[in-house]
Amino acid sequence: MHKKHNFGAGPCILPSSVMEQAAQAVINWGGMGLSILEVSHRSPEFEDVVLKTQLLVRELLSVPDHYSVLFLQGGASTQFAMVPMNFLSAGKKAAYLDTGYFAQKAIKEAKLFGEVELVASSKDKDYAYIPVGFNNDKHAAYLHCTSNNTIEGTEIFDFSTAGAPLICDMSSDIFSRKINITDFDLIYAGAQKNMGPAGMTLVIAKNEFLDQAKKEIPSMLDYRVFRDNMSMYNTPPVFSIYVAMLNLLWLKDQGGVSGIEQRNIEKAKLLYAEIDRNPLFYGTADVEHRSRMNVTFLAINKEVETGFLKFAADMGIVGIKGYRTVGGFRASLYNALPLSSVEVLVNAMASFEKIYSDKTVLELE
Amino acid sequence: MHKKHNFGAGPCILPSSVMEQAAQAVINWGGMGLSILEVSHRSPEFEDVVLKTQLLVRELLSVPDHYSVLFLQGGASTQFAMVPMNFLSAGKKAAYLDTGYFAQKAIKEAKLFGEVELVASSKDKDYAYIPVGFNNDKHAAYLHCTSNNTIEGTEIFDFSTAGAPLICDMSSDIFSRKINITDFDLIYAGAQKNMGPAGMTLVIAKNEFLDQAKKEIPSMLDYRVFRDNMSMYNTPPVFSIYVAMLNLLWLKDQGGVSGIEQRNIEKAKLLYAEIDRNPLFYGTADVEHRSRMNVTFLAINKEVETGFLKFAADMGIVGIKGYRTVGGFRASLYNALPLSSVEVLVNAMASFEKIYSDKTVLELE
Repeated sequence: MHKKHNFGAGPCILPSSVMEQAAQAVINWGGMGLSILEVSHRSPEFEDVVLKTQLLVRELLSVPDHYSVLFLQGGASTQFAMVPMNFLSAGKKAAYLDTGYFAQKAIKEAKLFGEVELVASSKDKDYAYIPVGFNNDKHAAYLHCTSNNTIEGTEIFDFSTAGAPLICDMSSDIFSRKINITDFDLIYAGAQKNMGPAGMTLVIAKNEFLDQAKKEIPSMLDYRVFRDNMSMYNTPPVFSIYVAMLNLLWLKDQGGVSGIEQRNIEKAKLLYAEIDRNPLFYGTADVEHRSRMNVTFLAINKEVETGFLKFAADMGIVGIKGYRTVGGFRASLYNALPLSSVEVLVNAMASFEKIYSDKTVLELE
Repeated sequence: MHKKHNFGAGPCILPSSVMEQAAQAVINWGGMGLSILEVSHRSPEFEDVVLKTQLLVRELLSVPDHYSVLFLQGGASTQFAMVPMNFLSAGKKAAYLDTGYFAQKAIKEAKLFGEVELVASSKDKDYAYIPVGFNNDKHAAYLHCTSNNTIEGTEIFDFSTAGAPLICDMSSDIFSRKINITDFDLIYAGAQKNMGPAGMTLVIAKNEFLDQAKKEIPSMLDYRVFRDNMSMYNTPPVFSIYVAMLNLLWLKDQGGVSGIEQRNIEKAKLLYAEIDRNPLFYGTADVEHRSRMNVTFLAINKEVETGFLKFAADMGIVGIKGYRTVGGFRASLYNALPLSSVEVLVNAMASFEKIYSDKTVLELE
């Protein structure tokens, strides 16, 4: 049967070769006569998977030795609380950059643990841009930012900032482009975009920063417990880690993060060009902060919006409906989405323009 | 290739029909042209999976309407902290029953949140029994117990207790036998034994009890947030929930929990009978508290232990090595393990006895 063009915002498309290997492992993993779903996480075979996945993360993102690579559960939403629980000490304040829906969620959780300072916000323009030039007070416990705003379609391209330790939610753009790990003290990311299936969370953190964590934190919410136990203090999400390993091996085959970044730039350029050209659609984010992962755009009227959604669905395009609070469209261009799918979408937009203008002319006659 | 006899303690064996359906869904779920790994958790198809899984839990365990069924992440280890975080209020104390390794872990986490009282412990006899007749003070915030002790091989068969609200870690025996939900105020269980793959946690809780939770709890650690959002406050572990649904459908086909309980009793009876009969092995748990899920036993000497492990491995028997702190053997007889696998193990024990006694006679000659 015909494969769909999956522009979903996450859980999202993964390479079909990864799906095939994952399915095979569910039946019989590596010829062991056991499914990947029934092996012990303490088996040498699975311990090897955890180690390989860690090493792939290190290799693909050039993670220096003085940083730890950890696999947790609970998604970015759990990190929203774990970050202040670990690092917002009494008498300190935490600085937050407000760039949208998920940044707001992180701020809400932090307020349960101590004083929160909003260093800047783009709420004034419905989060259509990334604030720059704000004051990053070095006395803050940390500065928290969201590298890519999935709902609003904006992305931070410059992380250079002097001041408080930088903590970044990279859930929706990690592994999509080169980053300089040493710009950050801690990075976290829900896996279900460019890393693997839902159910695991990646954390990359500077050891020196982890050592400053507050004491007396419950084990499963203490980064150091994961570091000291090779992410296996308890039963980890075995299948999610295994599929992440397969997916990172695929990424390596694509020329790594630099290779995929070039293709991601190309895909985004193609789609934004059509949005800017096509009179039926317009982008929502400021041009210089447009996300390469989540392209948000609106239709000129409700008729175009409804009509194009149906037109695209008939062409096997799925997952382009905008987030419920924003409306319109959101096309997510994650790593595994091929350029050919973007071409199908762009062609659909152009075809729909033709049909719509013919129809409108007809109605006017 | 020959399928192994998987006696692993968890993640553990699941039915092969479940593995096959899961593998198919990884390639193309329900003919949608999408993998179960790439569908949105907000899609009507997946919302239906969550609902169906909840209803299956309700049906199989006869969960009354005034209880909620929730799917979380982080395993029982996260529950060890979440329980006191939600229910151990200032000025109250929490009562804990110490029946082994995991009970101890729960106690350790609770101490971070307030006063903990050990109502009874079987530590004096290496946790070979379940303490009975202890005082359950109704003024305690709750009484916490572990229904099945995976490492020590003991199980609680009587939960009737008047006093504080009862909270139970049922990670390793839920769905293996009939329970009376109304005996408990809250039950939690890591999924990776009788429910599904690692990466999800089941919680069943009385609504009235949840309503008493302390305020100001981080969203991902607040049971009420999961209740109010149908376990989808954030991206849930999609694949784990889907496979759990398949597995619970399988369980329903087996005559439900009553049907499987009869088979579990039969399997345990067969293996314990061989342990009691065979002069090379002996059980570690007191007879009346022997677990039906995790059968722990020792060999009479190191030579038998090492020899039998190898002998069994050659017959395709895997996962019977005892926990590192206990040694010897542990054969886990979870729902999906067929009686025929237990027969293979019992026959192996008898055959090894023959070989060993022949060999010993030979050596003596």
